[in-house]
Amino acid sequence: MTATVAPRALAPEPGRFQDFCAGDLAWAPPADGDTVYDEAHPLWQRFTAAGLANWWLPTRYGGRGLTLGESLEPVAELAYHCPGFAFTAALSILGSRMLELYGNPLVAESFLTEMARDGSFCATLGSETGAGSELARTETTFRRQGERIVLNGSKAFSTNLAAARYYLVLARNETNDKEFAVVLVPAGTPGLTIGPRWRMSGLQGTATSPATLENCSVPAIYSLRGNGLRVLEVGLNGSRILMSAIAVGIARRVRDLGMDYARAKEVAGRPLLQHPVFAARMGQLEADLESMKSVCQRAASDYDALAASSAPAAAFYRHGVIKSAIMAKMHCGQTGWRLVSTASEGFGGLGYTESHPVQRCLRDIRHVSIVEGGDDVLRELMYSRYVKRSSQRG
Amino acid sequence: MTATVAPRALAPEPGRFQDFCAGDLAWAPPADGDTVYDEAHPLWQRFTAAGLANWWLPTRYGGRGLTLGESLEPVAELAYHCPGFAFTAALSILGSRMLELYGNPLVAESFLTEMARDGSFCATLGSETGAGSELARTETTFRRQGERIVLNGSKAFSTNLAAARYYLVLARNETNDKEFAVVLVPAGTPGLTIGPRWRMSGLQGTATSPATLENCSVPAIYSLRGNGLRVLEVGLNGSRILMSAIAVGIARRVRDLGMDYARAKEVAGRPLLQHPVFAARMGQLEADLESMKSVCQRAASDYDALAASSAPAAAFYRHGVIKSAIMAKMHCGQTGWRLVSTASEGFGGLGYTESHPVQRCLRDIRHVSIVEGGDDVLRELMYSRYVKRSSQRG
Amino acid sequence: MTATVAPRALAPEPGRFQDFCAGDLAWAPPADGDTVYDEAHPLWQRFTAAGLANWWLPTRYGGRGLTLGESLEPVAELAYHCPGFAFTAALSILGSRMLELYGNPLVAESFLTEMARDGSFCATLGSETGAGSELARTETTFRRQGERIVLNGSKAFSTNLAAARYYLVLARNETNDKEFAVVLVPAGTPGLTIGPRWRMSGLQGTATSPATLENCSVPAIYSLRGNGLRVLEVGLNGSRILMSAIAVGIARRVRDLGMDYARAKEVAGRPLLQHPVFAARMGQLEADLESMKSVCQRAASDYDALAASSAPAAAFYRHGVIKSAIMAKMHCGQTGWRLVSTASEGFGGLGYTESHPVQRCLRDIRHVSIVEGGDDVLRELMYSRYVKRSSQRG
Amino acid sequence: MTATVAPRALAPEPGRFQDFCAGDLAWAPPADGDTVYDEAHPLWQRFTAAGLANWWLPTRYGGRGLTLGESLEPVAELAYHCPGFAFTAALSILGSRMLELYGNPLVAESFLTEMARDGSFCATLGSETGAGSELARTETTFRRQGERIVLNGSKAFSTNLAAARYYLVLARNETNDKEFAVVLVPAGTPGLTIGPRWRMSGLQGTATSPATLENCSVPAIYSLRGNGLRVLEVGLNGSRILMSAIAVGIARRVRDLGMDYARAKEVAGRPLLQHPVFAARMGQLEADLESMKSVCQRAASDYDALAASSAPAAAFYRHGVIKSAIMAKMHCGQTGWRLVSTASEGFGGLGYTESHPVQRCLRDIRHVSIVEGGDDVLRELMYSRYVKRSSQRG
Repeated sequence: MTATVAPRALAPEPGRFQDFCAGDLAWAPPADGDTVYDEAHPLWQRFTAAGLANWWLPTRYGGRGLTLGESLEPVAELAYHCPGFAFTAALSILGSRMLELYGNPLVAESFLTEMARDGSFCATLGSETGAGSELARTETTFRRQGERIVLNGSKAFSTNLAAARYYLVLARNETNDKEFAVVLVPAGTPGLTIGPRWRMSGLQGTATSPATLENCSVPAIYSLRGNGLRVLEVGLNGSRILMSAIAVGIARRVRDLGMDYARAKEVAGRPLLQHPVFAARMGQLEADLESMKSVCQRAASDYDALAASSAPAAAFYRHGVIKSAIMAKMHCGQTGWRLVSTASEGFGGLGYTESHPVQRCLRDIRHVSIVEGGDDVLRELMYSRYVKRSSQRG
Repeated sequence: MTATVAPRALAPEPGRFQDFCAGDLAWAPPADGDTVYDEAHPLWQRFTAAGLANWWLPTRYGGRGLTLGESLEPVAELAYHCPGFAFTAALSILGSRMLELYGNPLVAESFLTEMARDGSFCATLGSETGAGSELARTETTFRRQGERIVLNGSKAFSTNLAAARYYLVLARNETNDKEFAVVLVPAGTPGLTIGPRWRMSGLQGTATSPATLENCSVPAIYSLRGNGLRVLEVGLNGSRILMSAIAVGIARRVRDLGMDYARAKEVAGRPLLQHPVFAARMGQLEADLESMKSVCQRAASDYDALAASSAPAAAFYRHGVIKSAIMAKMHCGQTGWRLVSTASEGFGGLGYTESHPVQRCLRDIRHVSIVEGGDDVLRELMYSRYVKRSSQRG
Repeated sequence: MTATVAPRALAPEPGRFQDFCAGDLAWAPPADGDTVYDEAHPLWQRFTAAGLANWWLPTRYGGRGLTLGESLEPVAELAYHCPGFAFTAALSILGSRMLELYGNPLVAESFLTEMARDGSFCATLGSETGAGSELARTETTFRRQGERIVLNGSKAFSTNLAAARYYLVLARNETNDKEFAVVLVPAGTPGLTIGPRWRMSGLQGTATSPATLENCSVPAIYSLRGNGLRVLEVGLNGSRILMSAIAVGIARRVRDLGMDYARAKEVAGRPLLQHPVFAARMGQLEADLESMKSVCQRAASDYDALAASSAPAAAFYRHGVIKSAIMAKMHCGQTGWRLVSTASEGFGGLGYTESHPVQRCLRDIRHVSIVEGGDDVLRELMYSRYVKRSSQRG
Repeated sequence: MTATVAPRALAPEPGRFQDFCAGDLAWAPPADGDTVYDEAHPLWQRFTAAGLANWWLPTRYGGRGLTLGESLEPVAELAYHCPGFAFTAALSILGSRMLELYGNPLVAESFLTEMARDGSFCATLGSETGAGSELARTETTFRRQGERIVLNGSKAFSTNLAAARYYLVLARNETNDKEFAVVLVPAGTPGLTIGPRWRMSGLQGTATSPATLENCSVPAIYSLRGNGLRVLEVGLNGSRILMSAIAVGIARRVRDLGMDYARAKEVAGRPLLQHPVFAARMGQLEADLESMKSVCQRAASDYDALAASSAPAAAFYRHGVIKSAIMAKMHCGQTGWRLVSTASEGFGGLGYTESHPVQRCLRDIRHVSIVEGGDDVLRELMYSRYVKRSSQRG
């Protein structure tokens, strides 16, 4: 199977992503509210055919093995052209990385090899309506029943759920509410029902749905090692960093929209491009964008250092939430929102029309501060993990 | 005709507006992208039937004669229930007030009496694609031709245009580019063509369209007295203050959405309502909201003082841009946006779904800093009129 | 006694304050760290001689009887020239208003008549080191002992304490920790010891000191009517509004410093005065300043409406914390700080020198968000009084 | 001479800096307004004796050769204990690096060897009163006169000037106003007069002074190679990055001050340390601080990559202003100011006293957005170099 995939040395990935974005994503019609990027979507098929889907999967399973650091530019580039596509493409790292690190080796090999080969999706069933971002209040339960694990409960938001081939479900022990597990459930398992797709404010093309689990039973080896809450924390490190990279891509798009507008627009008798107020605003935007890029690199570098250690699963597990990963998401979400908000005032009345790209950018970047732990949650996490415990401060 | 209108003393308007909002607007289905509030819309008909439409028109023309100060709560209340309805309802003040103050008395009486009787609309044709908010760069021209005035040009954004019975058009003298006039053009005048409705990012229910004028000819007495740029400045004072009141209404809605959510939501083992971080955020929101209300009142009071002077037309003309009016729009636009932005992070993943009201609030309040003079324009205006000229500072 | 005081109609106060500021305060050397504005200071003596000291005291006690609304411009004007003088001059309103509203009539007449005649000070002993802004945690106690009241405890910050002729002390009943009282203590009462003056970061010329009370005994009629916490809340309404007016004065000073600099400075080949980035910044500053002025007016108007009611003491007591008063302090403190922060970057390296007036403005305006209830306290108060209780919302 | 300096491998610098900070700087009395850190100051002598002064000088001149990346933690650590000391210690990198890269090799060796040996200072004479941050408007002139260069003009702000052994002076060709040079002037050269020290708002211990040059004559080989404006741009890269690291140190100090306060303080019946509002604020602060650290690292890494190239002088010259260096200064200045501003409200009334460390932090961190190119200048630079020229964007 690896025969069909060019060795990394011969195929520097960033160029391939750029080619895809320029050649395919660039011509994609703006996704309407009904479009969903899934295996069946022609763009996704071309993405997979180009060998780009699930680019982070280990080479030992036939994947491309890109590090987080190597993933930043590709994700930003995808997001520059279509944030919804980028989100859809990046989010499987959450589930697949948990499986890779903490799954039974045979189970992991089976599911990840297929995923690398087919460019298929997995999904994570974490958040619940009542618990919100407080994962410790998860009410979905599991119970061990002989060689099987049985799950019950309902989950609120899961991206790529309908398209996924397997799900990673966070659940609490039915009889011991201090014990949590992450359990793999293959698509099609009886008892798991996928609800109607949520219509999101932005990220068009992304499909997020709720689910219910009723006596959903899987083999016990489908349960991942370790405390489920910790396992999920580890998984979120990767997706939070890639969400930050999406913000970088959107911010770049906004900058270029502004420059395109300024090239054509005249104000006070001269091109807007030469107007000092415009120059000052774009100079500030560029500095903000550069700071966003820097924090992504910092977080990816911390992540990759753990991944490169001799025992990554243990290293990640010991570390839990990576400080720079939540910082990157907070910074990119906050700075990105401020940056796009400011920019959205710079296109005159036209910038307030629904079809103006800056309006889409506003709706798209909004998710960064909300999804996968809103800032309230992350501030609390930052405080309890990294401020109160003075030994970890810097 | 005034016989059908209850005398002011007997009909305190705020209560009537509240009744309408509670009774009619409250049950209005959320406006979809195709709904337009115009004379034919059932809600508008009920609004007119309740004697509320165009509430600011002078009693001498059969109007209700509410002052700007008296208009703030009604507009905020309408915006609380439907910002698009509020914007549609309030915007005719821009054109009608110019006509009332600077129109030929007979022309004014004719059009304003009809408007008071029928609850019908007028529209203003000011902005152009090239000129943007720089009205002095207006390229639409007029020329005097015997007893008539002939207009040529094209206009970019005009709210209520398709529904309006007459338009106020800003134009430059074809042969003297220092001379500007505002000219009334009745609906149906040959040569004026209304373009397709812009789809706006927010303010659903509002209809804004472009127009072209080709040898559009009207009687010369339809031209308003005075420099057209100044006349338009005077007109904008009223609509800018009412746009600020719309921001107040939206901010109140956001506060109440937050409180409703907090009543139902539990965080860290207690109701969100009692969570100190939530309390701090809502306390800040309430202070911001109160500051927004205060600046509206201040601006309305300045406006009403000019209106109450012995020669209002001259007083407004001499004054031009009212300092507190542009301040109110800037403050309510900026603070409102910050306030709704912050709030939009407080509803978990649900708050990012398209149908969540806070997303509509975000899209709706965005217009305040963009429409009728973006903040860049207003900052420049504030500086050139009120900072550089030290005599007017306070 | 009123014979020596010009009737209000003949002496419009704002003009008198302007004269004083232009004639006396203007030439005052910048206060160094050792200067204290008290009765002995020549400037204060001229202030008193001009009939301006304690301008809010009722005419029935020989005062000038200015309303809060009438006090805003005078306080802003004083602060424009010397924020420390303004703070010193305004702060006695806190204690004297409590005495006026809730004191025994004979006691009030005695102390307030003297204060009006001599331009002398009173001080309030509220805050404590442990309790901070949580007044309900006050540990200073009182006990009734026959016809006397005995006080014990220590207080952290009291402005004008060393200069004051009497103090209003908040204390808790020694034997009932739910009961609070405000008790008047004349200067010189045995047992009250004034500590060394705090050196504040700004507001030079103001003297703030701690105090201890050891078996400090006063006649029982020196105790004010009502729950001490409520009485203090009422008193704080006035001083909080006047602190907001101080922020207005500082903001104006900063604007004028900026304009003076821009008149002399050349950037990119033209006067800074004509530079679009400078213009934009000053336009925003002016709008912010205007919003600060508006909220002060709004709060003063709410205050004066209570003062003008038939039973002001009861009306104020029922009302407690005035919503617009805490909003004004929050808004003026926050916006003022942002405004001065931004401005402080606009004077090049010179603006970072210690003697540059903008550095003094920074240090001076900082107090608004900290003193008499920091924003954390006011947010909580706003929430608990005006958001949670839906009946009072608007 | 290198014999007295421990080889790098044996003496990891960060530890040495920590030792110095903990052992010496920690016990330094808070610098009053008259203290100046120069060669004569006991702390500086201990700093030099520990082999830490001018730590970035190349090993070939007897220096420690620390990279920028290796300098960040030491500078942040010094700033944590005394920002003025850190600024004084770091700023010589500006002049010495210009000399190292573009000076005549023999001249460079002579001055840099001495500097490494003695821990002595150099200073840069760039800014002028008229030109401000617009270096292209420099009015100080040079003229070639046989084998000598003669300088005339006056300079506004130069840190360490009085202590320095040599100065790097930016001047314009007297007869060709397009030509600029940086010229080394040894201390004691006749014609150069140092003016009285500016009293700065913060950075106590730092000495900044103006200077005049009257027919100040030096050998022609003291002129640095290349366009003086470009040479200075290169020099500023290093000092701007280290100023950003100073902001990191101050921010850390502010965090720790907050935590110390919270450990001792009780609010609403529990330790402030456990108060959710405090937790949220500190969580945000920590994220902001982490973002500041990240951008410093990014900038240092870009700098060090140029320094590690085969021809660093040419590489730096070609590059000019490093994008991430000005971004780091902007981000650390802006975020640092916001962070310290917020924190300065969190210590109650005590936090407003002059001697409270948070007030010193406010005054100290203010310089980052003002000195060595205010944000207005850097925004313009960012725009003209990195936004307008699309080839360099990322």
